[in-house]
Amino acid sequence: MTEEIGRARAAVERARDGGKVALISSGDAGVYGMAGLVFEVLKSLGWKRGDSPELRIVPGMTALNSCGSVVGAPLVHDFCAISLSDLLTPWSVIARRIEAAAAADFVIGLYNPASGRRTRQIVEAQAIIRRHRGGETPVALVKSAYRKRQNAAVTDLDHFLEYEIGMLTTVLVGSSQTFVFEGYMVTPRGYANKYTQDGEVLAGQRPGFSLVPSVKEVG
Amino acid sequence: MTEEIGRARAAVERARDGGKVALISSGDAGVYGMAGLVFEVLKSLGWKRGDSPELRIVPGMTALNSCGSVVGAPLVHDFCAISLSDLLTPWSVIARRIEAAAAADFVIGLYNPASGRRTRQIVEAQAIIRRHRGGETPVALVKSAYRKRQNAAVTDLDHFLEYEIGMLTTVLVGSSQTFVFEGYMVTPRGYANKYTQDGEVLAGQRPGFSLVPSVKEVG
Repeated sequence: MTEEIGRARAAVERARDGGKVALISSGDAGVYGMAGLVFEVLKSLGWKRGDSPELRIVPGMTALNSCGSVVGAPLVHDFCAISLSDLLTPWSVIARRIEAAAAADFVIGLYNPASGRRTRQIVEAQAIIRRHRGGETPVALVKSAYRKRQNAAVTDLDHFLEYEIGMLTTVLVGSSQTFVFEGYMVTPRGYANKYTQDGEVLAGQRPGFSLVPSVKEVG
Repeated sequence: MTEEIGRARAAVERARDGGKVALISSGDAGVYGMAGLVFEVLKSLGWKRGDSPELRIVPGMTALNSCGSVVGAPLVHDFCAISLSDLLTPWSVIARRIEAAAAADFVIGLYNPASGRRTRQIVEAQAIIRRHRGGETPVALVKSAYRKRQNAAVTDLDHFLEYEIGMLTTVLVGSSQTFVFEGYMVTPRGYANKYTQDGEVLAGQRPGFSLVPSVKEVG
């Protein structure tokens, strides 16, 4: 952690000295990444917009995106990301988030679930979620997505703690609607099974509009 | 919606006939995208792993990633994504999620916040969140990130409804820790201001480990 603050400071200082500096984070620098730290360093230096260094934040894919695609399509409906690292965040805040996410039926992505030293949090997280979801709820464990040692498993809420979970593992817990199909973890887009696969509206359902505006709509 | 089911079916059918088919979604096909629908179509056809067509899911950046980077670093700590479209999800489920996310201090990304016909949901969402967060909580509105008509604004919870919000807008609501700095929206990595900018441990805080395992750690 102190090392990361040092990296951010060094990057900003070199850029102020006229260097063209790229500060790299794995995944998305804006998601649990270095981008926030750069702003904190700039703030401490009294930096103003327009001052040197000029700043550009380049988005990337976070573990939710990469790990999700490895195991299927678990994030097709509402989801959240929670880091289990309590180094900078009180466990009470983290536990409250897990509880809220579990109760409100979000698909849950757990970052930093465990490490050699830190193994208690994922066990507590499982217990909290289990109070709100069935033991057969799909859970995926993905390690090092798209890297050499990629490793993925699709299991369930009652059994995922039997697997190896480390610092490079992302844990994806399904919602009440998530299902496993041919080993893939899939969350459908809605609750009401409003449409048949032929696009017909089911009995008792109002039809939707085929041009209903949607951020995901592709023309 | 019915159109999208048709697209998924057509893609699967052409692929089964031997075609090499790419089914494109804006953002990440796995986040509110077409990937889930493809699995639903395959399931309805009794497809098995190993059958034709062979399947590959390619991850992408979702609006959270792209829109976040446009306005700064709002997603450096726990966040969630909620779609306000109640076409396939009962509003009661959506409202419960907004309430839970607001109460548990998540940064909240709202997808599909409004459309020409559908304007009530974002107003209700604001009211729910406002019960849990101050009116000065930073809110960013980003439209068409990295596209021709990109448009972004950083405002706050009491004023964002005064802006134009449409089908291509993503709304990012800060947590209690999120701040605005030189027009950028930034969420710090932790709660305790445990470290000074020089990496020194503040009085009364236990030091962390510089090599504490983290998914975001870059060697």
